[in-house]
Amino acid sequence: MKKLYIIKIGGNVIDNPIALEQFLMELAKIDALKILVHGGGKLATELAKRLGVSQAMVNGRRITDAETLKITTMVYAGLINKQIVAFLQSKQCNAIGLSGADLNLISAKKREVLDIDYGFVGDVFTAGVNSKVLSQFLDNRIVPVFSAICHDGNGQLLNTNADTIASALAIALSGTYEVQLNYFFEKKGVLENVADEDSVMKLITKTKYKQLVLDGTISKGMIPKMENAFDAIQNGVKSVVIAHSDELKNCTTNEYIRTTLTA
Amino acid sequence: MKKLYIIKIGGNVIDNPIALEQFLMELAKIDALKILVHGGGKLATELAKRLGVSQAMVNGRRITDAETLKITTMVYAGLINKQIVAFLQSKQCNAIGLSGADLNLISAKKREVLDIDYGFVGDVFTAGVNSKVLSQFLDNRIVPVFSAICHDGNGQLLNTNADTIASALAIALSGTYEVQLNYFFEKKGVLENVADEDSVMKLITKTKYKQLVLDGTISKGMIPKMENAFDAIQNGVKSVVIAHSDELKNCTTNEYIRTTLTA
Repeated sequence: MKKLYIIKIGGNVIDNPIALEQFLMELAKIDALKILVHGGGKLATELAKRLGVSQAMVNGRRITDAETLKITTMVYAGLINKQIVAFLQSKQCNAIGLSGADLNLISAKKREVLDIDYGFVGDVFTAGVNSKVLSQFLDNRIVPVFSAICHDGNGQLLNTNADTIASALAIALSGTYEVQLNYFFEKKGVLENVADEDSVMKLITKTKYKQLVLDGTISKGMIPKMENAFDAIQNGVKSVVIAHSDELKNCTTNEYIRTTLTA
Repeated sequence: MKKLYIIKIGGNVIDNPIALEQFLMELAKIDALKILVHGGGKLATELAKRLGVSQAMVNGRRITDAETLKITTMVYAGLINKQIVAFLQSKQCNAIGLSGADLNLISAKKREVLDIDYGFVGDVFTAGVNSKVLSQFLDNRIVPVFSAICHDGNGQLLNTNADTIASALAIALSGTYEVQLNYFFEKKGVLENVADEDSVMKLITKTKYKQLVLDGTISKGMIPKMENAFDAIQNGVKSVVIAHSDELKNCTTNEYIRTTLTA
């Protein structure tokens, strides 16, 4: 099976134009099949503020009302996505910017209202990924660049979580490719001691992970990311790593400073 | 040669959600190869106003400064494009939303500064259209949906004119398909008498057109649209029509109320 790198970048890179260009330059150089999934960073929040659209948060999650959905669609699927694609094209990387609605590539399900109504938020599921069409792109050396906007198949756009999209893509494509799922963020990996940037845990098993959550080593923000990661591993993804975005250039080598997650 | 319908819609449809849904419903029903090119309508202007970004106009053309480029990219390539795609997908029409940057489909050239600096405005040229990749989409019954955002190949996004994009696509694909280029707008066609909505001129030759411009029958706003149309005809496009957006449902028939342009 051919190797496929699924690369997720978050706000720390998106919010910094110089860091973003550097990251994309390295991405263009990777001579292998690859998919980029990008988050939105602070731009959507800033735009909402400028427009006077108040942003309700519950447990650190944004409530996506109709106005907020428009803003996220504009910022993620429009501005950020097309800027990334134009830059990659200038580096001879044949990128295509995509939302889940395009070619029905990723269907999501609007989150059910239980105690909280998250609004136009979608949950992605593996069966909702159109892996056949994605494989055709990949086999033609095309680099899909996904924003985290999906649809429900009935005409409704939905704001989804970029980490989950990366994980769902990894699972869906793991039957066709040997997938390495890479979550890039602002730290060198999962840290044993948050005060020590170099205390990267090299390997975390599922059992170890549960223990780290219990003893508080792994904190709130990391939990959904790691749940997505272990979900991917349990469903056939060969390897999942969490690393600093500066490490992208090493992600195909053994010199790769990262936390590797394993069953 | 297979027939290809290139369909341009403008602001009058984009700005009216009910009219847009009706238009897209009819588009989904057309059982033939098709490409949609959409303008932006008033949304970008409204967003600029809400954000306090002043919009300089020279001779009816918008000056696209850096802030305005961001706004148009958000609105055209993000919000409008993805809403259209999600709706078409819900009607079993396999749409893909595209800018010119995606897959390097349409390169444009930043307009040179002569007397006026239009800013980040691009001029599209036929050689900048990647017709091979577009043919692959079409042959797989995929419906490309273009916003009027292109790139210069060096990483810069450019705001372009949707009428010109429709014309450039038509010319580039006229070697492979029998192209009918359709400009849909708010009138029934080119009117002999602007006060009479039914005074549609059925056929206009290039010679007649020049005369109509001279005698003032064809006014300012129509001139660029018709220049694009005659450019397409001169470069191999089989047929160019100008019609009311309600006529989309008839565009494959002979019951089509329109102005046809011819050499």
